[in-house]
Parts: sequence; C-alpha cells; structure tokens
Amino acid sequence: MSSSGIEGPPSRGRRAAGSGTRERILAAARAEFAERGYLAASVRAIARRAGVDPGLVRHYFGAKSDLFAAASGIPAQPERLIAAVLAVPPEQRGEHLVRTFLAIWDNPPGRQRIRALFASLTTQPAELDRFREFLLKEIFGPAVAASGGRDQELRASLVVSQMFGIAAVRFIFEAEPLASADVEDVIRWVGPTIQRYLDPPEG
Amino acid sequence: MSSSGIEGPPSRGRRAAGSGTRERILAAARAEFAERGYLAASVRAIARRAGVDPGLVRHYFGAKSDLFAAASGIPAQPERLIAAVLAVPPEQRGEHLVRTFLAIWDNPPGRQRIRALFASLTTQPAELDRFREFLLKEIFGPAVAASGGRDQELRASLVVSQMFGIAAVRFIFEAEPLASADVEDVIRWVGPTIQRYLDPPEG
Repeated sequence: MSSSGIEGPPSRGRRAAGSGTRERILAAARAEFAERGYLAASVRAIARRAGVDPGLVRHYFGAKSDLFAAASGIPAQPERLIAAVLAVPPEQRGEHLVRTFLAIWDNPPGRQRIRALFASLTTQPAELDRFREFLLKEIFGPAVAASGGRDQELRASLVVSQMFGIAAVRFIFEAEPLASADVEDVIRWVGPTIQRYLDPPEG
Repeated sequence: MSSSGIEGPPSRGRRAAGSGTRERILAAARAEFAERGYLAASVRAIARRAGVDPGLVRHYFGAKSDLFAAASGIPAQPERLIAAVLAVPPEQRGEHLVRTFLAIWDNPPGRQRIRALFASLTTQPAELDRFREFLLKEIFGPAVAASGGRDQELRASLVVSQMFGIAAVRFIFEAEPLASADVEDVIRWVGPTIQRYLDPPEG
C-alpha cells in the first residue's frame, strides 16, 4: 500500500555472508550423510567438504546429532532432547518421551514435516537408513541404555515402532479418534507402553 | 516337450463359468467399496452390480468382511479371525492378536502384500479410509468391545497404531533388530501392549 515505490527485497548486506556459510555447511552435511550414512559421517569431513574449520561447524550447529537435525529440517536439538529425557526420574521417561514428540509433531509445520519425512522414507530407503541410525543412536538407544538390562536394541526399536505407529495414525493417516484425541489422553495411554519398553525386562 | 502339437491353454470348460462369476463379483465388490466406502457398501448392492443373487455372493465369499478381504487380496477370513480371538480367555487376547497378525504377515507373500498395501495407503487416501473402517469395524473394534469399558474407539485405534508400527518397522522398513527378531520375542514384548489397550481402563 506504500506509494514510495520501494518494493525490492530487503537489504541483505552483512547477513548474507554468515548465512552463506551456514548454507554451505548444511549442504556439505547433507552430502556427507547421504554418502556415508549417519554413523560413519563425521563433523571433520563435513567441515572439509564445506571448506571451513570443524570448530566453526560446531559453533554454528553443535554436535553431529544437532547438525543432522538441522540438515534434515528436524525442529529439535537431539542433544538437549535426550538430556531432558534423562533428567527426569526413570519411571517418568516413557511419558516424557511421548509428550516431547507430540509437542514436536502436533502443530501445522510439525505435521507437514512428518508427512514429508514419511513420503521420503517410503520412496528412499537410504534416507530411511540414515534416519533410523540417527534415532536409535541419539534418542531411543540412549534412553533405553540408561535403564540397562537385556535386549536393549530390540527395546529401542519397539519404542520406535509405537512412536511411529502413533505418528502415522494421528498425523499422517489422521484416523479418528486418535487423530483428534486430547493430547493428555494419548500421553496417558501411550506413556506406559513406552515406559515398559524402556524398563529393563524381568528375569 | 510333447510332440502332439497341443500347446494351447488347458481346457477351461466347466471351471471357466464359476471362476468368471467369482471374478465378476470381486470386481463389483471393488467398485462398490471404492464408491461407497466399507461401512456403507452392502452385499445386496454388490450382487446387483454383478448381476447375481445375494445368496450366491454369500455362498462364494461369506460375510461382507470376508468379501472385502478377498477383494483386497487379504489372505485371511476376518469372521473366523475375530471368532478365534474371542474364543480365547480375555487376558490372552493381546498375545493371540499379535501372534495371528505376525503369522499372516511373516512369509514372503505376506510381506509383499503388506508392502503393496502400505504403498497404496500412502498414495490413495480413499483406500486408506476403507481399510481403516474395515479393520476397526471387523477386527479391532469387536476385540475391544468384547472387553467393555470406556474409550473403546480410542483403544481400538491404539491397537491399530502399535500393530501398524510393528508391521512398518519389521516388514516394510525392515529395521534391525526388530526385522529379524524371533517371532516369540516379538509376541512376548508386544502382546502385553495390545492387552493393555484391549483391557478396560481402571477408574
């Protein structure tokens, strides 16, 4: 509605250089993760690809897990997320995990991201492998390992199975009544399931 | 290897008529389910589309649920499946359901079918709706209803979420260690989860 005739893009002076470096690091990270997988990729190799110092990568993005999240459009910092899970008493971690993931997913951009992720997982097996390595190594593996006991890897993938099922039914397929169930009801029902997979099995 | 020169297809005399009728009924069923959804479709309307008597449809395929299964390539008879579930004591039904579904899926044609189903579910929302109506109305709904208590629809869709998550991780994504875990271990872990969703909630 302005009559000044100023309609060009805003000035991009100083900001452009910094954002160019960030983008170069993210592009290098995507290439490195795609080529080597999540576990074998290293911050050092990503820095080399981007032509910057590894310290600068850590300065911008933190740990490898956080860089993976940023490069994948995941709106969470995995290091903080798992630290927050481990900070609550062991018997409350199932509920805490469900609450955390529902908060990440349960909003329009979260739903959009999980749908895009789901579509790419079903068509690009390599991306699925990277994502699975990341989830098990950085989130669900440490959550189970903190409780100890046997069958840790199996228990971590059972956690993935229930969380994935909830995400699919509630956010992708949007099947009622789970799609619009109160978030506290979902937490009350699913929290104990996750808790049982986290807890060390008896015997 | 015969030298008789007889190389045409085998005789299709009497069998052809029967199999033609079956195919016509299945095609009519697919059209009716696609047009009206699972719940609104009727055996009577399917018979009309196929130009046969409703009794003949029931003679060939049994209940509407069994006809849906046949038309969808599902290798199970839902009426028998749910009858078998309800025949075991209530506290064993979770384990029984997990065992039954793993048996249906855990073989090469089963895996192939579930992958094809999954692919169509992610690209054809209408097919997803039909399939969900079918599962909730004929399998998981009755299994939960038999236990009574509140939140029956939510509990049925929680059962779906865990069964779907297991199917996705074990058979579609084939993520280890769940992909090759011993079937008895999977039943031991997941059975109690399903059982908790089936059981009436306290309070």
